[in-house]
Amino acid sequence: MPSSTNGNTPSLEYIFHPRSIAIVGISADLPKLWIKRLYLESLITNKYPGQIYLVNPKGGEMDGLPIYRSVKDIPGPVDHVVISVPAVHTPKIMEDCRDIGVKVAHVFSSGYAETGEPDRIELQNRLVAVARQGNMRIIGPNCLGLFYPRGRIGLSPDLCMEPGSIGFLCQSGGNVTFMARHAVSRGLRFSKIVSYGNACDIDECDLLDYFASDPETKVIAAYIEGAHDGPRLLKMLKSAAAAKPVVVFKGGFSPDGLRAAASHTGSLAGADTVWDGLLKQVGAMRVYSIEEMVDMLVALLRVKPFKGLNVCAIGHGGGASVMATDELSRTGFRLTPIPEGIRDGLKEFVDLANSMLRNPIDLGTGFVPDAMEIVMKMGSRPPAEYLHEIAVSGGMPRAKRLNALLKQWPRLDLVVYHHGFDISPVPLERARAAGGPGSIVLAAYACELPRAVVLHSTGDNRSFEASIDVRQFAADLGLPLFLSMRGAAVALRKLADYSMAYPERLAGLAASSADVQPSDQG
Amino acid sequence: MPSSTNGNTPSLEYIFHPRSIAIVGISADLPKLWIKRLYLESLITNKYPGQIYLVNPKGGEMDGLPIYRSVKDIPGPVDHVVISVPAVHTPKIMEDCRDIGVKVAHVFSSGYAETGEPDRIELQNRLVAVARQGNMRIIGPNCLGLFYPRGRIGLSPDLCMEPGSIGFLCQSGGNVTFMARHAVSRGLRFSKIVSYGNACDIDECDLLDYFASDPETKVIAAYIEGAHDGPRLLKMLKSAAAAKPVVVFKGGFSPDGLRAAASHTGSLAGADTVWDGLLKQVGAMRVYSIEEMVDMLVALLRVKPFKGLNVCAIGHGGGASVMATDELSRTGFRLTPIPEGIRDGLKEFVDLANSMLRNPIDLGTGFVPDAMEIVMKMGSRPPAEYLHEIAVSGGMPRAKRLNALLKQWPRLDLVVYHHGFDISPVPLERARAAGGPGSIVLAAYACELPRAVVLHSTGDNRSFEASIDVRQFAADLGLPLFLSMRGAAVALRKLADYSMAYPERLAGLAASSADVQPSDQG
Repeated sequence: MPSSTNGNTPSLEYIFHPRSIAIVGISADLPKLWIKRLYLESLITNKYPGQIYLVNPKGGEMDGLPIYRSVKDIPGPVDHVVISVPAVHTPKIMEDCRDIGVKVAHVFSSGYAETGEPDRIELQNRLVAVARQGNMRIIGPNCLGLFYPRGRIGLSPDLCMEPGSIGFLCQSGGNVTFMARHAVSRGLRFSKIVSYGNACDIDECDLLDYFASDPETKVIAAYIEGAHDGPRLLKMLKSAAAAKPVVVFKGGFSPDGLRAAASHTGSLAGADTVWDGLLKQVGAMRVYSIEEMVDMLVALLRVKPFKGLNVCAIGHGGGASVMATDELSRTGFRLTPIPEGIRDGLKEFVDLANSMLRNPIDLGTGFVPDAMEIVMKMGSRPPAEYLHEIAVSGGMPRAKRLNALLKQWPRLDLVVYHHGFDISPVPLERARAAGGPGSIVLAAYACELPRAVVLHSTGDNRSFEASIDVRQFAADLGLPLFLSMRGAAVALRKLADYSMAYPERLAGLAASSADVQPSDQG
Repeated sequence: MPSSTNGNTPSLEYIFHPRSIAIVGISADLPKLWIKRLYLESLITNKYPGQIYLVNPKGGEMDGLPIYRSVKDIPGPVDHVVISVPAVHTPKIMEDCRDIGVKVAHVFSSGYAETGEPDRIELQNRLVAVARQGNMRIIGPNCLGLFYPRGRIGLSPDLCMEPGSIGFLCQSGGNVTFMARHAVSRGLRFSKIVSYGNACDIDECDLLDYFASDPETKVIAAYIEGAHDGPRLLKMLKSAAAAKPVVVFKGGFSPDGLRAAASHTGSLAGADTVWDGLLKQVGAMRVYSIEEMVDMLVALLRVKPFKGLNVCAIGHGGGASVMATDELSRTGFRLTPIPEGIRDGLKEFVDLANSMLRNPIDLGTGFVPDAMEIVMKMGSRPPAEYLHEIAVSGGMPRAKRLNALLKQWPRLDLVVYHHGFDISPVPLERARAAGGPGSIVLAAYACELPRAVVLHSTGDNRSFEASIDVRQFAADLGLPLFLSMRGAAVALRKLADYSMAYPERLAGLAASSADVQPSDQG
């Protein structure tokens, strides 16, 4: 397929730089209002610098923009179209697009090969045939299309437009917004996202190839339901995984899931063992849910590389410490006993009663003086803001002492800090959460060893609400924030394995990543 | 140990019916304020009908109650004491308690055998020796003690005081509040909770024995870190599991977790394989986290028994449907293809485009007319209240039609409804969530087959907030509510296995459970 390839520019680069975008099928009617909110509002709100054109056979105007009756009526060049009309009407629109030289057609509509109906498969084939008559590429059908924050191309009004370094190709539309929201809530940001649905033209191979050489992308994440060209997929996965870390969530990995994937995006999903072998062969990391994918990306982008499995768990709560140990231990980490000298140092501020000074370390009331000082001095200021001020101005005394002690621990590879908002006997109010849990995050920030923070708060609405500021604070600081010890343990163990197998692929990743704040480079 | 045993009354029954409770070590000083909030406020707020006595050597008064300088100064009989003074002072207090005939001493303080220090182990032994000089039993040390809603004995000001049918014995204090909050947020309620810490006297065996014959308890849940009498544990577990469903979370199941458990509650944790064999032998269900425990209890108390593994997944979203299928399929459920006649019926209101009509069923826009009607008619009324009104007055037309179709599906054992708040391309506002997600819950409610509901909303703060009312609505309706498909699949599969192995233990459980509303008995 011809494209604007030249020299080192990835061949699909041009699809992210349209001079104009036309939205075909826009309407103020209720079911269609969705399209307006997803595409038109995202472009306007985010100040997309190119031309925006609206198209609907009924004409009229919307938000001060004229609605053209056909793409052929548009007065300027059209690089990109979003097509949201019933499937049966798309071939005609595609012909019009071909005729006016559209470069990329993103077919939002569904009702094609994924239905399994012969006439619908034929309809999808016709789209491809029309596109090939011109130099047009197709994204989709049955997908959400492009998200490119640097180019001010939004998708859904609530997605964060700060650019980052994760390139995400995703065969499901729902998983684009789920993944983007969840990753952003953990402090991560995206270079580009492409939701590519049925993959009738641009497919996972094209996108892996693109992201492999995209300088804005440091890590590739992929939700893939199926592929139709095994040997090409192997080739593209291999070169992508050699270039940068690749994390793959294969949707439809179970026997019935294979069938479901076919029904969702018309994919030939392929036996799970084949996928597993493929991913292992090329050295891509495999995950089994969106949560696991975000955990893995947090680990890759925010945890300093480490190679051993000696971990220390530090947090609040006896049961929580036992459970943390189980989760870390079952993935193969070792919680080696705390050296006697360090134990003695901890006794300076941790009372033996209501604590555990072995490994895990339950700090008990050890941080209480710091926590009380934070809450007192904070007054009515926003907790995340006040905590940030403490963090950048040197931290709290007990956290610093803890760090000094941990540095003396021979062969300690990783420290995992944790706090469970669910376990407080007296429930924490949101403002007071800056105290105890805030102290844990400040201790993680002060820590010079590779470290992670787990803030657990999904027990009930009140715990979740109480944890909002401290979670935000941890994510904004650039700390690797996890929401469950199980999730942390699984991702951290995969990171350790990856780091041992492919140290060169991680080299410079944390140091160069736009996802980590400069203050976090240790 | 002597006790008030007579006839069929379980021997420990009297510990839940103290005529008076004394709180020793109460103080208005900051670190101790905690004790006031946990115990004194819980008793006052919940209108505990017995006498409340406060004790502190400094004297004074608090909340209008005199503070006695010693338990010996208390003018009336004292059945129960909560002891919260530094460990070294507890033997003297215990002697006073013995002398005035206290029946139960709950030692809140920690700093005993769990520290591993010889003098602290000796201190714990002294408590036991003093108790045995009288007829006193000890709960603890190092624990939160009793929670008995029917007796108005609270624990922590935010725990729900509505009585239910789950008896929970828990060796960790933090896991009591975590478990109670999480279970309550899912609609479950407790008969009694005993946090028993180091188990120097009353232990897991006593409590299993008690709950096995407690008529207020229909299901037993246990968080156990260790045991010191294997043969007795086997005996008690066996009789408890024969009497009612028993769910066990063994804390400290990993190699390093064993050591951590010893450090937390001084437990001899025992090899994991021994525990596994023990639990299998008696037919207790094993779980590996508090979340899994709550999932299992939801399944036991709210899912009608089913014996086959043929499941249908119905929800919103293509990727979500594929992921749901994977999670159900990997635990062994079968998503058998939808019969042609039923598929034709669904086509009446589900458009082939943007849907999946196989199994999984992605309803696409199928419920949109119902959803719009709900949002329109609801106006500014509280969503959960309005949805409840619809539910009890017959439901929505498309949900009813769906139910009628599903009833015709031969050999379908279970229906799992799901909605992900995280996947909406346009984020849902809280009030509008009553529409689409509310329709899914209404469909589950209308369903006459065994069914479960999964509402996923932990992607970010906004999704979680948007889902609050609909989650509450589902829990209040008595529906089995899960927060992740993985959690649901694991628990439902365990329920299927349990139901096949021990049908007699489930017989009458759902029908007699106080945790399910009468309207939910199908």
